Amino acid sequence: MNAEIIAVGTEILLGDIVNTNAQFLSHELAALGINVYRHTTAGDNFDRLQTAFSEAFARVDLVITTGGLGPTADDISKEAVAAHFGLDMLLDEKSLSDIACFFDKIGQTMTENNCSQAMFPRGSKILDNPAGTAPGCIIEQDGKICILLPGPPNEMKTLWNLHIKPYLARFSDGILVSRTLKMVGIGESAMEDKVADILVNGLNPTVAPYAVGRPGEVVLRISAKAASGEAAKALMEPVAAELYARLGEFIYGEDDDTLAGKLVQTLAQRGLKLAIAESITGGQLASAVIACPGASEILDQAVVTYSNASKIKLLGVSPITLEKFGAVSEQVAIEMAEGAAKAAGADFALSTTGIAGPGGGTAEKPVGLTYIGLYLGGRTFAKKFQLFGDRTRIRDRAVAHALDMLRRGLHE
Amino acid sequence: MNAEIIAVGTEILLGDIVNTNAQFLSHELAALGINVYRHTTAGDNFDRLQTAFSEAFARVDLVITTGGLGPTADDISKEAVAAHFGLDMLLDEKSLSDIACFFDKIGQTMTENNCSQAMFPRGSKILDNPAGTAPGCIIEQDGKICILLPGPPNEMKTLWNLHIKPYLARFSDGILVSRTLKMVGIGESAMEDKVADILVNGLNPTVAPYAVGRPGEVVLRISAKAASGEAAKALMEPVAAELYARLGEFIYGEDDDTLAGKLVQTLAQRGLKLAIAESITGGQLASAVIACPGASEILDQAVVTYSNASKIKLLGVSPITLEKFGAVSEQVAIEMAEGAAKAAGADFALSTTGIAGPGGGTAEKPVGLTYIGLYLGGRTFAKKFQLFGDRTRIRDRAVAHALDMLRRGLHE
Repeated sequence: MNAEIIAVGTEILLGDIVNTNAQFLSHELAALGINVYRHTTAGDNFDRLQTAFSEAFARVDLVITTGGLGPTADDISKEAVAAHFGLDMLLDEKSLSDIACFFDKIGQTMTENNCSQAMFPRGSKILDNPAGTAPGCIIEQDGKICILLPGPPNEMKTLWNLHIKPYLARFSDGILVSRTLKMVGIGESAMEDKVADILVNGLNPTVAPYAVGRPGEVVLRISAKAASGEAAKALMEPVAAELYARLGEFIYGEDDDTLAGKLVQTLAQRGLKLAIAESITGGQLASAVIACPGASEILDQAVVTYSNASKIKLLGVSPITLEKFGAVSEQVAIEMAEGAAKAAGADFALSTTGIAGPGGGTAEKPVGLTYIGLYLGGRTFAKKFQLFGDRTRIRDRAVAHALDMLRRGLHE
Repeated sequence: MNAEIIAVGTEILLGDIVNTNAQFLSHELAALGINVYRHTTAGDNFDRLQTAFSEAFARVDLVITTGGLGPTADDISKEAVAAHFGLDMLLDEKSLSDIACFFDKIGQTMTENNCSQAMFPRGSKILDNPAGTAPGCIIEQDGKICILLPGPPNEMKTLWNLHIKPYLARFSDGILVSRTLKMVGIGESAMEDKVADILVNGLNPTVAPYAVGRPGEVVLRISAKAASGEAAKALMEPVAAELYARLGEFIYGEDDDTLAGKLVQTLAQRGLKLAIAESITGGQLASAVIACPGASEILDQAVVTYSNASKIKLLGVSPITLEKFGAVSEQVAIEMAEGAAKAAGADFALSTTGIAGPGGGTAEKPVGLTYIGLYLGGRTFAKKFQLFGDRTRIRDRAVAHALDMLRRGLHE
């Protein structure tokens, strides 16, 4: 089955919002084995929207729209598709009472405009929207299917998972299942070099780099198409094993795993505590760890020591070391990590010191020069990195490298 | 003049990347007074792409494409538009030598495929690409204009600013200039209530909420169309003055200002120092401050005190206060702020303590309950917030509220 996605909304054509719904739906449709031919964004204009429907249905059998289901006069998706199919609009009493209940629940008054949200093209299958006031609907006619979903991403996703995914499963000629392997400590081209013979188009399963990693991370996606989810998983297994054999040392997790999340989980399981002392990353490393549920089990305290005085006072870094080597040095990174572990009574400690820019660089110590220190139960060392990009990118990468050093330390 | 934007790339139709180029271009075209009728995404398929061109040129005079200019056999944007206009492809010697130079500069070998990047439809105006290897081009024929830009956002933006913006200025029937007023400490609907009579469509200037604020922030955009930038600015002036009169206490800055950036600037100008003690925000507040260039002038140190023991040890919070009121309490927030200021010898200090979830909430102290403390030169107080959303959203909002409390403190 082939499909197109039509986003409805002048605010997208004005550049006020990014159409992320198209990405979500494309990804989900690919997983159902449904090909997406085209994405279209049309404004809140009846004639142009009706034209977009006619063009799309001339090419494909399934059209999914997002947006234009709200209560204002601008919201015309249902009317335009009704006109395309030659259907009139009918009031759905159940939807009207659901909308009234929703307003009651949030303590606001329902306006007359909201009634338009309970009007649907005759013969529609109506889709409850527990996340908002705009129900969606499905219209089937002469082998063509139009699915209308609300524009706000959380409402769209709620309706997708609740109604559309099960509805579309019957049209799928096979299931596409994916696994993503998440890596850190290796660049994209170096990674591709190691597996170039596996990254071949047109196979089943396919393996391809996936361009949505966090800063400093790279991702490979394995996708297999088969009659069932189980069969697709079995197809992927030997390919994944080969990728682990070649890239295992860089792979920190799969799919929804995050690098910090895996570390928090590993430390918590082993009953170990982490301390953090940051200069260049300025709280971002602690924040990445604390973003993970369960962080309170492994982290008692962290310090941001931005000035030399605070490095001396809070971490016991030696003034002589600071004087002799400078704050951005291997020696200071080591003393920071040791001091952090000692102050917190922790088993592990990470430290960061560097020059994030835009100012502060010299020929000898350029912007991006960063040292990361790691204390692991008695032993301490630091690694030097020359990071590139703007202030944000340099700090992001320093965080990724610090977490990677801890990951490797935990493997030992 | 009316325009459409066509993104070319199967990876967008598979949901592997979000089409952010369409937003950037729409926004820029709106600023030039050029209406965008439609966004289309087509795959790397010659016939379908040529159809998309024909349909678009039947509606509008200007089509801008992104993507499909790379060196592989999949990259067919130039060929498809050449076929649409009935033009043959010619090699451009200058582009070929520029591409060779680029590879030389980055120390990589140019492949034969890269030569296709120097082929253009006959009569094209060729656009240098200092940010990559794919030059863009402009084709003009019979009153229709096609502009082809590369897909990577940084290359696309480079070509836009360097070549396209000046090129299109001549077609603009007026310049649209915008100002955004950025607010914190007020919700979107409360803000709209205060200025409902100004948020009227169809006026010049227009004023509208702008849905791209950071968490906890709201943004209003004023846009005016006039013959010159100066005239547009003059039109906006009285409207901005009225908005400042009604919303001034919430407005922290305009356009590229960030809340943390404005605070760093204000504190640095007054020679004041800030200290930070974080529990719920776990380093994110310090990170937001340190993300701003110049932060080293105003911040010496910050601490993340996640455990009770660290609150006692690093901030001198009283064990009795912790026992009596609990870590998430007004009293602890106050003692944390006082302790942070004292430890750092700072003029101001912010503290955060709360329950980010998903676990840890009780009936009395639910997930989202947060206290933020502020020390301002001798005086300390704390405010209570009940924040909503998931762990990330709660922490984001706590950071915004903390920065807003400091902003208000500095105003006094």
